[in-house]
Amino acid sequence: MKKSSIEIISIGTELLKGRIVNTNGAEISRTLMMNGFPTSRHTVVSDEPAQLKAAFIESMKRSQVVITTGGLGPTCDDLTRPIAAALFDSDFYLDETILKDLQKRYGPNVISLEDQATQPKNAIILKNDLGTAPGLIFHNEKNTLILMPGVSKEMRAILQSQVIPYLLKNFTQEHYDRRHLHFFNLSETLIDPSMRELQRQFPGIEFGIYPSHGIVSVEAMVRGKNKDLSEQLSEACQSLKTRFIDHYFESENGKIEEEIHRIFIENHLTLSLAESCTGGSIASRLTQKAGASAFFLGSLVCYSNEMKHEILRVPKDILSQYGAVSEQTVLSMVTGLLKVTQSDFGLAVSGVAGPTGGTERTPVGTVWVGVGKKGAKPFAKCLHATGNREMVIEYTVNCALGILRNAVLG
Amino acid sequence: MKKSSIEIISIGTELLKGRIVNTNGAEISRTLMMNGFPTSRHTVVSDEPAQLKAAFIESMKRSQVVITTGGLGPTCDDLTRPIAAALFDSDFYLDETILKDLQKRYGPNVISLEDQATQPKNAIILKNDLGTAPGLIFHNEKNTLILMPGVSKEMRAILQSQVIPYLLKNFTQEHYDRRHLHFFNLSETLIDPSMRELQRQFPGIEFGIYPSHGIVSVEAMVRGKNKDLSEQLSEACQSLKTRFIDHYFESENGKIEEEIHRIFIENHLTLSLAESCTGGSIASRLTQKAGASAFFLGSLVCYSNEMKHEILRVPKDILSQYGAVSEQTVLSMVTGLLKVTQSDFGLAVSGVAGPTGGTERTPVGTVWVGVGKKGAKPFAKCLHATGNREMVIEYTVNCALGILRNAVLG
Repeated sequence: MKKSSIEIISIGTELLKGRIVNTNGAEISRTLMMNGFPTSRHTVVSDEPAQLKAAFIESMKRSQVVITTGGLGPTCDDLTRPIAAALFDSDFYLDETILKDLQKRYGPNVISLEDQATQPKNAIILKNDLGTAPGLIFHNEKNTLILMPGVSKEMRAILQSQVIPYLLKNFTQEHYDRRHLHFFNLSETLIDPSMRELQRQFPGIEFGIYPSHGIVSVEAMVRGKNKDLSEQLSEACQSLKTRFIDHYFESENGKIEEEIHRIFIENHLTLSLAESCTGGSIASRLTQKAGASAFFLGSLVCYSNEMKHEILRVPKDILSQYGAVSEQTVLSMVTGLLKVTQSDFGLAVSGVAGPTGGTERTPVGTVWVGVGKKGAKPFAKCLHATGNREMVIEYTVNCALGILRNAVLG
Repeated sequence: MKKSSIEIISIGTELLKGRIVNTNGAEISRTLMMNGFPTSRHTVVSDEPAQLKAAFIESMKRSQVVITTGGLGPTCDDLTRPIAAALFDSDFYLDETILKDLQKRYGPNVISLEDQATQPKNAIILKNDLGTAPGLIFHNEKNTLILMPGVSKEMRAILQSQVIPYLLKNFTQEHYDRRHLHFFNLSETLIDPSMRELQRQFPGIEFGIYPSHGIVSVEAMVRGKNKDLSEQLSEACQSLKTRFIDHYFESENGKIEEEIHRIFIENHLTLSLAESCTGGSIASRLTQKAGASAFFLGSLVCYSNEMKHEILRVPKDILSQYGAVSEQTVLSMVTGLLKVTQSDFGLAVSGVAGPTGGTERTPVGTVWVGVGKKGAKPFAKCLHATGNREMVIEYTVNCALGILRNAVLG
């Protein structure tokens, strides 16, 4: 078993033009990391042959394992296969098994299938059930070169089912003990001093802090198998969780909607929403995850004041006296919402997402959040978001769901 | 004026762990490309000093201009500045102007500000109004090295206001004539033969095709200033547009919601939505863009059948006889919607987003879209989306807005 050093090369002109973001690189690294294989470099190059070959040679000089995506398709500018084959002194042959499979899936008369079934003699073929281009593994005493297609869903399937098992069989995993903690409505500046203090107290732990709009995720990690360090890790995480317990939530992927799903389904509760400035984004986030219909009844996105009055029964004088972005209005929205939908819990938001519409009293980023529970008095909280419109909305979605979480768990 | 070759280096362990996607790289390349500066390579490296230095040296050997993001912050693992300064033989000095500005913005007692105000003597300072770390430009007879912070909004501001003007002043732009065409509900396999035909007819044009769920964008481009080729470009684009006119829409950024905003605002029309399987995503997309309140009244996201009946007045026997995902139900949804909201146009969707809930008659990916106009008979269309839940929803949002577009423009 060899210890690996791994680089990823993503091939494609569209990546260098910035029309496409290199999500494949991040996804491969994340998957490798979860399996104990850290990545040392990402490279994006065009499919111009000389540049591609140079990038392959450079990476193979630095790293034992090189994983590439892209450039395996049937079009004439896909040159990854011949370049890789030449580096590993491999001829090509027509693989009848692959050809038959492709003809079965795509019909016998598609011309490019023969090209896609012509494969290097010295490579392990990685079967691609979702597309035409198989992946390939070349290896010699020094290097392993793994080629995968660039289409994300094909890449993902091949990575999970064939590449990871290959690496686990042939290379030594590094051992990590990693924990993740997630907090809503907690600013980086507030958590940072605690993180520095923990770093001083536990110098053997590597901490990482990943803020997004309305959510801060903390990673704490120790390398190797070490019972003492793992115990320190538990202690550090517990300490951080306790200090910011009002902001803490449980989630595998750092998404607060996961926690909302869990809480509502476990407690057999129903939820409905009344959205103004978030314009359907809270509902959209909740329903992106499958299974929402078990607790989520719907969202009355009342963007205009008329709809707030007609659908949510907010009295016109409340809207005119206090304005749409006010404590009184969100309390009235959530009260009306519960009457209309009969859900166990209701969540209402109204704010100024910007860039225009702000006033001195309610500047851009001011958002009122109202939470109601069947048979109980509703309450409201005010958020102050920063950044552009998109950031204000994302911040609001995360914090509103956090406030709802705390209200349900009491 | 020198002709440039440009590489981008993104620095950060979190990128190599795959916890963060390298959006900065794509954004910088896109902005450079729009200004006539193509990128030849992206690299992601950790902030480990030896690796960072090696990456700088390699890139500077290959390319005249190297642009980096990340590693400029005040924490102890941010080592980009000293490494770059050493490569350009530069000492450091405490810049009193920067220090005073930082103290004014962050208070006089923040310790790390002195560090952030200590800058290399030989560099041009790029002022950072949104954060603490200024950017830097080093240059000598061979290379230009431009350092920017990794926080996207800080990077974006410095790139637009200082880096692009610097490049325009010191390097020759490449000239491109680029056109973009966008189509909804058009599969790549349908447009591909036409693209190949156009490529044969116009060998001097570079075509690129960028499919996403429900939208296909085509880029057609010629390099250099050439009147003949530019005329060919216009001809090719016109031909493609005419061939797929039922799927075509106008948009600067390839987002169909931009076109919906324009059409409804220009024609002084109002819109409301009734969403089921999209769960608020259509409303969310429309309201992510500022100015939606000029035409968008709201969305009644009725996820449960009870809400479809209570809010949208869909008769219970229609729901039980035909099911929630049916032509009859979306027609009834959009009819009820127009009655409730009094908008000029109404759009209703109901489908099976999956992964469960499909039947033999209505498999996962089946989506009915209903469009209603005040005083006219509503109509419905059926979509067949593929992929996972997220893809089905995105496909539906794009296609439903496309169907609405055609209905409004007649």
